[in-house]
Amino acid sequence: MQRYFSSNLKDNNFILSNDDWYHINTVMRMKENDNIEIVYNNSLYLGRIENKQIYMIKKIMDKEISKRKYILCIPLLTDSKMSFVLQKATELGIDMIIPIYTKRSIVKINDKNHKLERWYKICKEASEQSKRLSIPVITDIKELKDLEGEGLKIVCSTTNKSITLKQVLNKCDTITFVVGPEGGFTNDEEELLVNKGFIPITLGENILRVETVPIYILSILKYEE
Amino acid sequence: MQRYFSSNLKDNNFILSNDDWYHINTVMRMKENDNIEIVYNNSLYLGRIENKQIYMIKKIMDKEISKRKYILCIPLLTDSKMSFVLQKATELGIDMIIPIYTKRSIVKINDKNHKLERWYKICKEASEQSKRLSIPVITDIKELKDLEGEGLKIVCSTTNKSITLKQVLNKCDTITFVVGPEGGFTNDEEELLVNKGFIPITLGENILRVETVPIYILSILKYEE
Repeated sequence: MQRYFSSNLKDNNFILSNDDWYHINTVMRMKENDNIEIVYNNSLYLGRIENKQIYMIKKIMDKEISKRKYILCIPLLTDSKMSFVLQKATELGIDMIIPIYTKRSIVKINDKNHKLERWYKICKEASEQSKRLSIPVITDIKELKDLEGEGLKIVCSTTNKSITLKQVLNKCDTITFVVGPEGGFTNDEEELLVNKGFIPITLGENILRVETVPIYILSILKYEE
Repeated sequence: MQRYFSSNLKDNNFILSNDDWYHINTVMRMKENDNIEIVYNNSLYLGRIENKQIYMIKKIMDKEISKRKYILCIPLLTDSKMSFVLQKATELGIDMIIPIYTKRSIVKINDKNHKLERWYKICKEASEQSKRLSIPVITDIKELKDLEGEGLKIVCSTTNKSITLKQVLNKCDTITFVVGPEGGFTNDEEELLVNKGFIPITLGENILRVETVPIYILSILKYEE
């Protein structure tokens, strides 16, 4: 069954965005009295299309039991690579995405708010498609010096060759991991992060593209949950 | 340093394809006496451009010590998804890719040889970019009934909810894993594979897109090496 996120419940009817209604009517060709799944406040509901509204029938599933929280810090990438990372990281259970400025990111952002809206939309659609009960939070773009992180803090290093992800993973509530740009962080940048408590790890000998790294790490974290 | 694959060594000169020469001259703008890396017969060499040929200076690295072998069986996907899977699986160390026909693959192949050539090219470029010493083998497209597999044999199931990848992974030399199409294998197809010795595993509750699954599994296999 098709799933949509709603942030508004009024008189037992879920309010959806115009984009969602377009999807319901034009893409899915759904009709009056068809049932759909609605996620509202991290819970799952069964709803029915009635008089061009979504009537709440019942709650199906409650908030997710508290699971480990994943925070990804990623440099600005080209549009197609950024879309890819946002979509795949959402599928694989990311909770928060922090876009970061780095010296070797060559991508410039002209209209930041427009970009943040577009990124949110990609995450929302991927959340619906992969049947999540939450949409990842995308924060404002941050400078590296303002990055703090929570829980176990990791940075993917190109210089450190000895510490592996396996060695540092532990039973923590939150993992923050930072991925470098193409060409890696500069020495100064990596030093800054290490001084902030991020552990530099190696991902092995083969060279992964920047956009592959978050998927690689999240797959492992999910596997080790 | 830029890396190219050669399948031919003659009078101490490596022979490269026209595509590679185009890349060397026009994309990389390399000149006479520039050094490049050449992979020949799974070994790495240092070469130098001399008289429009690649002169072999010395061997840098020998064949990879025998590592675990990974075989991916993947349904026919749309062009962009197939390119994505081939590129990322190559980065993550796949050794063999077997494209398979399945009931729910909706993609039709018109010119099979042209397609196989294109797929090979994607894997070759990804091998160069990720600094591999081998290019994955892509076999002819197979019917499910003709699929045998080697070593530990796994199929990603949508019906089996109990056996996880973690439970079945062991110290084997080869792992063959089969990914289903969008909508999953039919019951008959899954039964056929199970009868052939493929263990049906679950990838957890969240729904991953078909093209995400190989990347997810390979990331874990690489991590568990």
